[in-house]
Amino acid sequence: MLNSNISDNEGKFIGVDIGGTSCKFGLFSQNGDLLKKWSIKTFLSKNGSQIINKVVESIKDNFDGSLLGIGLTVPGVCRNGGEDVTSVNLRWKKINVKKELANLVSCPIAICNDANAAAVGELFARKGNDYHSLVILTLGTGIGGGAVINGKILDGPQGTGGEFGHMIVNTKETRSCTCGRCGCLEQYASASGLVRFAKEKVTGFEDLGEITPQLIFNQARVGNKTALEVLNEFGEYLGLAMANIAMILNPEVFVIGGGLSGEGQYIIDLIDFYFKKYAFDEIKNTPIELSKLGNDAGIYGAFNLVSNN
Amino acid sequence: MLNSNISDNEGKFIGVDIGGTSCKFGLFSQNGDLLKKWSIKTFLSKNGSQIINKVVESIKDNFDGSLLGIGLTVPGVCRNGGEDVTSVNLRWKKINVKKELANLVSCPIAICNDANAAAVGELFARKGNDYHSLVILTLGTGIGGGAVINGKILDGPQGTGGEFGHMIVNTKETRSCTCGRCGCLEQYASASGLVRFAKEKVTGFEDLGEITPQLIFNQARVGNKTALEVLNEFGEYLGLAMANIAMILNPEVFVIGGGLSGEGQYIIDLIDFYFKKYAFDEIKNTPIELSKLGNDAGIYGAFNLVSNN
Repeated sequence: MLNSNISDNEGKFIGVDIGGTSCKFGLFSQNGDLLKKWSIKTFLSKNGSQIINKVVESIKDNFDGSLLGIGLTVPGVCRNGGEDVTSVNLRWKKINVKKELANLVSCPIAICNDANAAAVGELFARKGNDYHSLVILTLGTGIGGGAVINGKILDGPQGTGGEFGHMIVNTKETRSCTCGRCGCLEQYASASGLVRFAKEKVTGFEDLGEITPQLIFNQARVGNKTALEVLNEFGEYLGLAMANIAMILNPEVFVIGGGLSGEGQYIIDLIDFYFKKYAFDEIKNTPIELSKLGNDAGIYGAFNLVSNN
Repeated sequence: MLNSNISDNEGKFIGVDIGGTSCKFGLFSQNGDLLKKWSIKTFLSKNGSQIINKVVESIKDNFDGSLLGIGLTVPGVCRNGGEDVTSVNLRWKKINVKKELANLVSCPIAICNDANAAAVGELFARKGNDYHSLVILTLGTGIGGGAVINGKILDGPQGTGGEFGHMIVNTKETRSCTCGRCGCLEQYASASGLVRFAKEKVTGFEDLGEITPQLIFNQARVGNKTALEVLNEFGEYLGLAMANIAMILNPEVFVIGGGLSGEGQYIIDLIDFYFKKYAFDEIKNTPIELSKLGNDAGIYGAFNLVSNN
């Protein structure tokens, strides 16, 4: 809930979610109320070297009160608390974001990968459940993944922890994934994977215009056999991967985010059917839920990271 | 290193590793020196109801000094710190081991799954490396798995965390795994899986007597093509599974234990070849090491758990 009354003198936190296209900002009260939200275009010129400058400028333009901390999420591999960040989308290679930001502001800062921040945000959105672990898969053009286990982000020394989209699920694949390897989950269970499946089975979609994920889901809802077949294959890959993730991490809850989560309960039911098929009895009932925060998961996560620092 | 001089008055810890056949005991100094080791047969009669009694009797028979704590590992699913333990091997179903043990001794206790305890033990054996994360796979008749991540055991609310042997790697399998599902890693990459592979390719082993894992490794070492083929398939399953585990957990080190680890560097090289084939560039160099503690990993882990409680 946005609240325009931010004139009180109590210190505030800022959560920033830097994306390849835009940077989202959230101003938070100390107890996590989102008071104000805005965004700017990500300034990619000059190899992304001005991004942090522009982010700090925008914060100063939008808030002149007492700043208790800035949390920042980045779409890339983030090591050593932001001292070593690499992001293809931002054109960053081994950038010391922590130092750059600390040179511009005097408050505490926290820097984290965006999908892991989203996991923290979704956990915060479920604080009534008293969960200590959560796995999020964001199903968009690719698959993002993040996890909180035992209350801590699962990232690991190389920052690859929770990269569920790049679990290899098909060793026979000859087409390359964006990562350069072949047979990653992302090649089958993302929006682009789904469209590719559908295009391979062109009979059934001839007269329906451009094949999009929405078209496939809508056709499945009205009983189109090809659409159902395509979605079953998609759901089986996801359900199987999540059953394997659960054997490794045993999270208390799974969250599905990203563009495809707009398909609502239909996509949850689809995934859950195959998850139950492949999961151990003990974990068959792990809840699989839609994202509660949507595109705001990153800023909420960033707030939580810096406010709990 | 065993030390028979245990007459000093300083308090000691006991680590107990309860197995389906025998219970192993270790007496430890406060800084983790193993002072004495012994074992008893696991008392399975009366549905395993006397196991804890017999364990405590044996501790009292073997040590009458000041006891600072008892750590206990069990071959099964261990929830709520040992208040809810189920173990097929011990004939236990939802046993409150914590209560049972606390009724018999007055010192602090810690109870944990055996593979997770082994991970803790192997981490302790590498304390010079200052690792905070480690994944162990024990390759025996089945595959045991345990993990420490961010310094904590990865078990999860249902206790299935780190059950790497039951990741599903083949959805086309029709034979059942011991868990009742089909296509688990354990069906391909354990000692029994290896022997089954070899039996399916009987040409090449006709005159060599009973097919055992040792025979297969020995034949591979002298260039037997069937043995090499069988081991490559085995190694590929393990390397692929471990690459996927690394994408999820990004551990600082992998440890291979269990009976097959007796094959030494040969098995490490085999796994590492396929691990490097399937892993992300950033994590290709994750060390894969042989167990340093072998059968003592459990008692060392049990000691560590109770002494750090």
